[in-house]
Amino acid sequence: MRLSVGEARDLVARVMQAKGQSAEYAALTADHIVDCELRGLAYGGLARVVSIVERLDRTGPPARAIEVGHETPVSARIAGNDNIGYVVGHRATEIAIQKAKASGLSIVGADGTWYTGMLSYYAEMAAAEGLVSSIASNTTAWVAPHGAVEARFGTNPMCFGFPAEGDPVIWDIGTSNIIHAEVMLARRLGQEIDEGLAYDGEGRPTRDPDAALGGAFTAWGGHRGSGLGHVVQLLGALAGSAVAPPDLADFGFVIQLTRPDLLGDAAEFHAKVTAYAEWVRAARPVPDGAAVRMPFDRSAAERRRRLAADVIEVPDLVHARLVEVAG
Amino acid sequence: MRLSVGEARDLVARVMQAKGQSAEYAALTADHIVDCELRGLAYGGLARVVSIVERLDRTGPPARAIEVGHETPVSARIAGNDNIGYVVGHRATEIAIQKAKASGLSIVGADGTWYTGMLSYYAEMAAAEGLVSSIASNTTAWVAPHGAVEARFGTNPMCFGFPAEGDPVIWDIGTSNIIHAEVMLARRLGQEIDEGLAYDGEGRPTRDPDAALGGAFTAWGGHRGSGLGHVVQLLGALAGSAVAPPDLADFGFVIQLTRPDLLGDAAEFHAKVTAYAEWVRAARPVPDGAAVRMPFDRSAAERRRRLAADVIEVPDLVHARLVEVAG
Repeated sequence: MRLSVGEARDLVARVMQAKGQSAEYAALTADHIVDCELRGLAYGGLARVVSIVERLDRTGPPARAIEVGHETPVSARIAGNDNIGYVVGHRATEIAIQKAKASGLSIVGADGTWYTGMLSYYAEMAAAEGLVSSIASNTTAWVAPHGAVEARFGTNPMCFGFPAEGDPVIWDIGTSNIIHAEVMLARRLGQEIDEGLAYDGEGRPTRDPDAALGGAFTAWGGHRGSGLGHVVQLLGALAGSAVAPPDLADFGFVIQLTRPDLLGDAAEFHAKVTAYAEWVRAARPVPDGAAVRMPFDRSAAERRRRLAADVIEVPDLVHARLVEVAG
Repeated sequence: MRLSVGEARDLVARVMQAKGQSAEYAALTADHIVDCELRGLAYGGLARVVSIVERLDRTGPPARAIEVGHETPVSARIAGNDNIGYVVGHRATEIAIQKAKASGLSIVGADGTWYTGMLSYYAEMAAAEGLVSSIASNTTAWVAPHGAVEARFGTNPMCFGFPAEGDPVIWDIGTSNIIHAEVMLARRLGQEIDEGLAYDGEGRPTRDPDAALGGAFTAWGGHRGSGLGHVVQLLGALAGSAVAPPDLADFGFVIQLTRPDLLGDAAEFHAKVTAYAEWVRAARPVPDGAAVRMPFDRSAAERRRRLAADVIEVPDLVHARLVEVAG
C-alpha cells in the first residue's frame, strides 16, 4: 500500500487516539513514526505501530500523563508514568532545551517509558536550537555482554548531535547486533535471523526469532561496544530505570545539552563542524568504495528524497491492521 | 630493570623537571605515567616519557602555564598553552569537580594540549567525588574514517565513569584499531604492526610503522565506531581544538560531570551501579570462556596486584635514556 506522508501521519495519529492517547500525544507519536519511514527505517515505522498496539492491548493505556518532578536551573526529573517514549523523549527534550538556553547546560532524565524511537529525532530538535546533545536510552535486558550468553543490557541506543551551518552532524547507534523490532518483524514474517546475532535460553547460538526473544541478542563491537551498552544501561539507571527493567516497560531516557558559547564562539563552532564534515566527505575512499559519508548523511538524503516523492510504502498486512484499529 | 613504584614516580618527575616542568606539574605527570604502568598499559608508561622528551626537544617547553578563561557557574574554558595533557586534564577535572558539586552539572573544555593519557584517570577523580563523568579528547588526525584511506580524526579516546559502592565502573576506549604510542613503540623496536591496522601515504595497506605514521591508522568498529571517532573530534573542536590539529599539538579535552542527586537519590544510584556490575559478572560465560568482566575490572585488579608487589618492570633501554635525561 502506498500512502502520502500526510495520510501516513493521519493513520498513525488515529490509531494512537483509538488506543487512548490524547490528540497532542498522538500527533507527536505519528510525527516520530513517519520520520522513521522517511529516513528509510521501516522497522521503526508503521510496522512498529502494530507492536505498540499489542503492547497497549496487553497493559492498557497509561493511567496518568507525564509528570515533571524535581527541578533545578540545569536539570529536571520526569516520571514517564508508562507513556510511550516518543512523547516522553519529546517532553524531556523541550525542557532540556529551555534550561540549556538559559543556563548553558542541562540534563533531563525520565523513567517509566518504553519505545523511545530514534534518539536522533531529539538531537535534531536540539541542533535546531544551536545545542550540542548527548542522549541515551536503556531498554529491557535483551542483549548479552561480550563474553556472555545471558542478557544483561538493552539494545541501548546512544546519540551525539552537533549543530552546524547546514545539516547537523548526528551520530545515533544501537549497541546490539540486531534490534528488538527487527527480531519481532522476522517472527511476524516467519523468517530466520542471520547467524551470530542471538543465543537461545540455553546459551546456544540460534537463528529462530522466538528462541532469540527468549534468550539474548549479541552485543555489537566486542568488549568496546559491549562496554558502551553498559554505559547506556547505567545512564538509564541514573534517570531512574531499574537495574533490570521488565519486558517493554520502565526504560530510562537521559538527554544532556550544551550551549557551544560556553566554550567559545558559537558561529565559529558551527563553521568548524561544517568544515570538518566537508573535509571528511572529501577523504579518498577505499578502492572501489563509495564516497565517504558523515553520520546522518544517509538519513538526511533519504528523507529529502521521500518527502519530495510524497510516498510511503507500507506492507498491506500492516496497513490493514492499522486501518482496523483506527476504526 | 625493576623499579619500585616510588622509584619509578621519582624518575619520571626528575625527567620532567629536567625538561622544564614545575615540581607540581612534574609530580602530576609522574603520577599519571606510573598509574599506566600499574594498570599494565606499558605503552603509556615510562616508554611514553621517551616520546614526551622527544616532543619537548623538538618544540621546547611551553612558554606559559595553564590559563583559565571564560567561566560560568557550570563551565570553564582552559587555554592549555601547549602544556602536556596530564596536567591540563587534571586541572580541567579539578575545576569541573568544583563546579559540578556546586551547580549539579559542569563542562570544562581545554585546547592547546597533547598526550592527555588515560581518560579513566580523570574519571576516577570524579567518581571519588561521587560524580558521573563523560570525557573526550581529540588528537592529530592519524585515523582514516570507515570507508576511507586518508586520516581525518585522531585516536580519540572517549570515557564514561560511574561512582558505585566500591570500585567505580569506568568505560574508556580509543576509537582507532591501534594507538599512536603502539606504532611508535613498534618503530623504536624495529617491529612490524599487525595486518589491517594501517594504510600508507598512497592508501595501500601497510605493516610498516613508518609508512603507517605517514599514512593513516584504521578506525575501530566499522561505521558505528568510526562515527564515535567523529564525535570525539567535534567535542575537541567544541573545546577549541582546530578542525585538523597539527602533529602532536593542539589536542582538545572536554570533561562533563553530573551530580547523580539531580535525578534521584545518590546512594541509591551507587547501589544500583554496584548491583548491576555484580549481575553482569554473574552472567553465564560463552562456552570455555572466562568469567564476564565489567569495564575497569581488569585495570583495578592489575593495579592492586602491582601495588602489592611494588615492582615496575622497565625495558633497560627506556630506563637508561630516562636516567640520562634526569641527569
